[in-house]
Amino acid sequence: MNRQKGIDHLFNPRSIAVIGASETKGKLGNDVLRNLIESGFNSRIYPVNPRGGEILGLKAYRSVSEIPNHVDMGIIVIPAVHVIPVVEECGKKGVKALVIITAGFKEIGHEGQEAEKKLVELAEKYEMVIQGPNCLGIINTNVPYNASFSAGTPRKGKIAFASQSGALMTGILDWSLMEKIGFSKFVSLGNKAHLNESDFIEAFGRDPDSTFILLYIESVVDGRKFMEACRKVIPKKPIFVVKSGVSMAGARAATSHTGSLAGSDTAYSVAFKQCGVRRASNMAALFDVASVFDDMHLPSGNRVAIVTNAGGPGILTTDACEVSGLEIAQLSSETIDFLKKNLPPAASVYNPIDALGTAQPEDYALCIDASLQDENVDSVLVLLTPQAMTKETETAQVIVESHKKYPHKPLIAVFMGGNSMVYPRIVLTEGGIPIFDFPERAVHAIAELYHYTVIRDSLKEESIPTFKIDKKKAAEIIENVRKDNRRVLLGNEAHAIAEVYGIPVAKIKLATSSKEAKLLAAELGYPVVLKIASPDIVHKSDIGGIRIGLETPEEVEEAFLQILDNVKAHVPNALIYGVDVQEMAKKGKELIIGCSRDVQFGPLVMFGAGGVFVNYLKDISFRLAPMTHRDASELILETKIGTLLKGVRGEAPSDLLAIEDTILKISQLVTDFEEIVELDINPAFAYEKGNGVTAVDVKITIGG
Amino acid sequence: MNRQKGIDHLFNPRSIAVIGASETKGKLGNDVLRNLIESGFNSRIYPVNPRGGEILGLKAYRSVSEIPNHVDMGIIVIPAVHVIPVVEECGKKGVKALVIITAGFKEIGHEGQEAEKKLVELAEKYEMVIQGPNCLGIINTNVPYNASFSAGTPRKGKIAFASQSGALMTGILDWSLMEKIGFSKFVSLGNKAHLNESDFIEAFGRDPDSTFILLYIESVVDGRKFMEACRKVIPKKPIFVVKSGVSMAGARAATSHTGSLAGSDTAYSVAFKQCGVRRASNMAALFDVASVFDDMHLPSGNRVAIVTNAGGPGILTTDACEVSGLEIAQLSSETIDFLKKNLPPAASVYNPIDALGTAQPEDYALCIDASLQDENVDSVLVLLTPQAMTKETETAQVIVESHKKYPHKPLIAVFMGGNSMVYPRIVLTEGGIPIFDFPERAVHAIAELYHYTVIRDSLKEESIPTFKIDKKKAAEIIENVRKDNRRVLLGNEAHAIAEVYGIPVAKIKLATSSKEAKLLAAELGYPVVLKIASPDIVHKSDIGGIRIGLETPEEVEEAFLQILDNVKAHVPNALIYGVDVQEMAKKGKELIIGCSRDVQFGPLVMFGAGGVFVNYLKDISFRLAPMTHRDASELILETKIGTLLKGVRGEAPSDLLAIEDTILKISQLVTDFEEIVELDINPAFAYEKGNGVTAVDVKITIGG
Repeated sequence: MNRQKGIDHLFNPRSIAVIGASETKGKLGNDVLRNLIESGFNSRIYPVNPRGGEILGLKAYRSVSEIPNHVDMGIIVIPAVHVIPVVEECGKKGVKALVIITAGFKEIGHEGQEAEKKLVELAEKYEMVIQGPNCLGIINTNVPYNASFSAGTPRKGKIAFASQSGALMTGILDWSLMEKIGFSKFVSLGNKAHLNESDFIEAFGRDPDSTFILLYIESVVDGRKFMEACRKVIPKKPIFVVKSGVSMAGARAATSHTGSLAGSDTAYSVAFKQCGVRRASNMAALFDVASVFDDMHLPSGNRVAIVTNAGGPGILTTDACEVSGLEIAQLSSETIDFLKKNLPPAASVYNPIDALGTAQPEDYALCIDASLQDENVDSVLVLLTPQAMTKETETAQVIVESHKKYPHKPLIAVFMGGNSMVYPRIVLTEGGIPIFDFPERAVHAIAELYHYTVIRDSLKEESIPTFKIDKKKAAEIIENVRKDNRRVLLGNEAHAIAEVYGIPVAKIKLATSSKEAKLLAAELGYPVVLKIASPDIVHKSDIGGIRIGLETPEEVEEAFLQILDNVKAHVPNALIYGVDVQEMAKKGKELIIGCSRDVQFGPLVMFGAGGVFVNYLKDISFRLAPMTHRDASELILETKIGTLLKGVRGEAPSDLLAIEDTILKISQLVTDFEEIVELDINPAFAYEKGNGVTAVDVKITIGG
Repeated sequence: MNRQKGIDHLFNPRSIAVIGASETKGKLGNDVLRNLIESGFNSRIYPVNPRGGEILGLKAYRSVSEIPNHVDMGIIVIPAVHVIPVVEECGKKGVKALVIITAGFKEIGHEGQEAEKKLVELAEKYEMVIQGPNCLGIINTNVPYNASFSAGTPRKGKIAFASQSGALMTGILDWSLMEKIGFSKFVSLGNKAHLNESDFIEAFGRDPDSTFILLYIESVVDGRKFMEACRKVIPKKPIFVVKSGVSMAGARAATSHTGSLAGSDTAYSVAFKQCGVRRASNMAALFDVASVFDDMHLPSGNRVAIVTNAGGPGILTTDACEVSGLEIAQLSSETIDFLKKNLPPAASVYNPIDALGTAQPEDYALCIDASLQDENVDSVLVLLTPQAMTKETETAQVIVESHKKYPHKPLIAVFMGGNSMVYPRIVLTEGGIPIFDFPERAVHAIAELYHYTVIRDSLKEESIPTFKIDKKKAAEIIENVRKDNRRVLLGNEAHAIAEVYGIPVAKIKLATSSKEAKLLAAELGYPVVLKIASPDIVHKSDIGGIRIGLETPEEVEEAFLQILDNVKAHVPNALIYGVDVQEMAKKGKELIIGCSRDVQFGPLVMFGAGGVFVNYLKDISFRLAPMTHRDASELILETKIGTLLKGVRGEAPSDLLAIEDTILKISQLVTDFEEIVELDINPAFAYEKGNGVTAVDVKITIGG
């Protein structure tokens, strides 16, 4: 069965069996059944317990098979050892969706992992979907039902939340009840044996009750599927992720620049950026954003008007706007004239509009209304400090009224204070106005509304360009390397593969004697470069394994011998295939283009300033392959070298199109050949516009 | 009188006159007197009002002179026009400290500014200190007294707070009452006509009731004094600043690299860094930090142990630690063995210590105690999520007990939840344990404790090195430029000044004809560089005003004429003094060293990667002059080029000492000559260790 259809049963079950239901307080099977009954689920509930009888006032069945009617969804809260047979029984019974709360699977080791495999087999065999195992359950506040052992049921709202940590969910649920934050769906992902984050993202995307998607994840099961699901959903609603595990260094063996420069968390960050997911660093700020999304229309731009009764907080807000990418709106001359006429002369009628410490509710009203009507304003932020003449509650009321009159622009309040703001806060919240203590969080929330509009618009359907190449030819070279029991390609092999993909490279030939080197040099044309050809030597220049600018046969001969001496001195046991003779590329702007491979997300392409100091300058950026033209172009322009390439201080611009083309070809290469685990072009020389690019040194490593 | 002695009277007055006291509710003179009485000030209060009689039950005097006894402190709340004569009267009466609440001074324009000057004169004449005008007043919770028109009096605590915005203070006061945050001093700075932030910083530093200093400022009156005061105080207690106005671009005309690269806020950030002030971006986070400082001893290092009942929050905390510069402690083998013996087998006994979802208070107790005893641990963070078997309140109690047993290590709690955490929160707060909702803010607070210890230790008394130079010689050159009505020094003049200060420069001579150019070239030795000498041309290379590597007299002649042609073509009206002939320095690593001048803080020195692309790479850092050796060394090493200069990938290290020396000499030069408004050395070439530095192109601009 289609997983999404399965999730429909999970979200809107017509009947639910609680397998492991119990009369005994403190048992999970009791908590789950009680939550289900108390949450108001008004279709059929079937407690299942080998002892039968009655549980919490409902007839209990000895087994699922014994239930006389169709069962849509099953919740399993029995010891792990009994789970598999019960799942099979559910399959036979025609249950469409299972929530396995029971722990003791993957998290306990090999045996549990095997059991999970069996679960997936059964899910597929019987066309069911399975959530969990080892999870808290699921809550839908719209049906409504609470099929979990949570303490309490969340308020109804528009946030769809899925979490890989059940314990974190319990904390957030408890906190949300106090903070009065509502949810549409509340899903504990558990071990993600069958259904995972990507399935729920897609389902949340289709769910009319959800307008905001929030995930807590520690990892994703399938990077590509995750990105696909997000790309599909984000044009309709925003996705925010809290992803932990930033600091757990990956155990990857990194020999390439690209590998060592990409931290373990880089691929996640890049994936989020590339598919439009916003990453939050902070739980509390995230819910601020959610509350603003819940209440407000999206702004049509980033221009904010600030209305205040005090200068200091106005400046703080202005600062926060600048940091967050928001603009302080330039008010129209009509607005300014109107404010001049209606505010005291000492007031500031420019933005921030300072109605002075004496500002009364009617002053606030006219400033806010004027701002909301102004075509130069996209959203309005109202600041209030509790001064001697301030009427907090009445001001809250006029804000609510203004919002009713002009509901299409975001209107957000910052009431700086505590005890005297308790009632005004209630007025604002009830009136649908997001309210904050301090400006920074309010500004952050507005900025996220705006950034979402930008992301949404940028996620238009874009295609991945493909180049016609002779893939077989590249495959043959790799096959030969494999036969030779090597993982690192020799220079001539790597350059040959790059050539197959249409990447302009410095020509290279392998010489096994100084005589041959001289012949090849003559063939390529002087000057030439000589480089040691050895799979054991990664940083050739560090040990004197490279000689450049050789102009004569004599120099070639001398260099050939010197390189071999150097290598023997530094790496006595290196396996030497000979010395590569390479045409000497005209010097251009030094770039690095590389690729490493992420376990979750696949090929991670790096671009940046090249040369020997790449590790120290770290002027680099990343994208996942395959890429669109926009991805490649952004990848280049995110770096400082990207700015230089555009041509500055009278310099001619570099051939950006050729660089983009090279990046896209590399993307295709590493997407075509999964066995390429690392690739570095360092340097590639970029020339003036129209004169292309040359890959000077190409390194490729294939997987074992 | 010494300002600090004056502030002593302000902080601990034996008698207070309220000048402008009023019986009428709603008047500021009524608010102030009522606050004073209600706050429990138990020395003499003298209401002063021309009508005399009795106000709020106290005998009122018609004037200050009429008061029969000595008056220590006066609070002035009368209309602005009457303030000056009353201040004079107070002076004559021998009042030691005045708080002028009255507005209508500098903030209303020229007339008010003049009145403030008069206030300062009177303060000096009568040896008084004056706080304000245009302020909210002052509160000392230890005397106690509230000499302000605030709504409410803050709780007693250890935070000394001074604010340039009165309205912001009212908001924070109101909020602090709800959040139960206490203050020792609460000072509204107002217009800072006489007493300013530096005076109060010094006073807070001496105040035994204050352990944490917090400022909100929009500007400082005197940058040097501010830094001096902070340097003096920070070894004893931390200073945190919220500085607004980041986004208000300065109106400075920037023609130098240094000027254009230093934003309007750079000098503030650098000054804070250089004198150990922590800058906070966010009000709420700031008070988190304050509460932790209030309750806890300082940690002896950055190693954190995490005790949790859930994996997810443990990982989030680990991430937050890494971001904040904290280390996850490596527990000792004794601790690990102890935990293994005492926790269930599924628990994680490594850090984060995961006592599992079933963890009971006694499990928490043993994990926390073991961590607090472990020598590898500097502070302990306890996480709790409300799971089925969790006992929130009892766990809170064991945390308090553990802290009592081991009070010397910071112990902080994160109880993730809302309603079910209300009571546990009270238990923790009463027990002196800082408590947070989510891990990020708790980690941030611990990190600030740790960073304070680092800052404090680094602020050891350090001296500013001085070089013996012939200052007169430099002064003469500048004097000649001034006589010539120029602001931009010619190349030969700038290089000469640099030479006076012992900075190694490429030798330079001015030629006014091609013949002279050839003679000078012969004198300097080939190859040479020719550069246009014109005060009107800033970026010489952009218009063909520089030719390098000239090897022969013929080349010099040709270049001389070509440069003049280029300049005429591009800047037809440029005033041309001739062409500089310069020795061609051996190429080294390209650096930029420069200086611009900040209105508040004086000379701002920049260091970074030089060359024509400096504006695009922006690999730069800043320090204020004069500088210590440590300042200069940190300035270099903060940049990426600094890393390269240390010698990487087998390259020999550059002459870091010579670079540091050059920076210190420039610091001295721009400190000696305030009229140097901008200075750029771009490039300076750095050579291998022992081979020094050469300043290739020195530009100096003097003030009008």
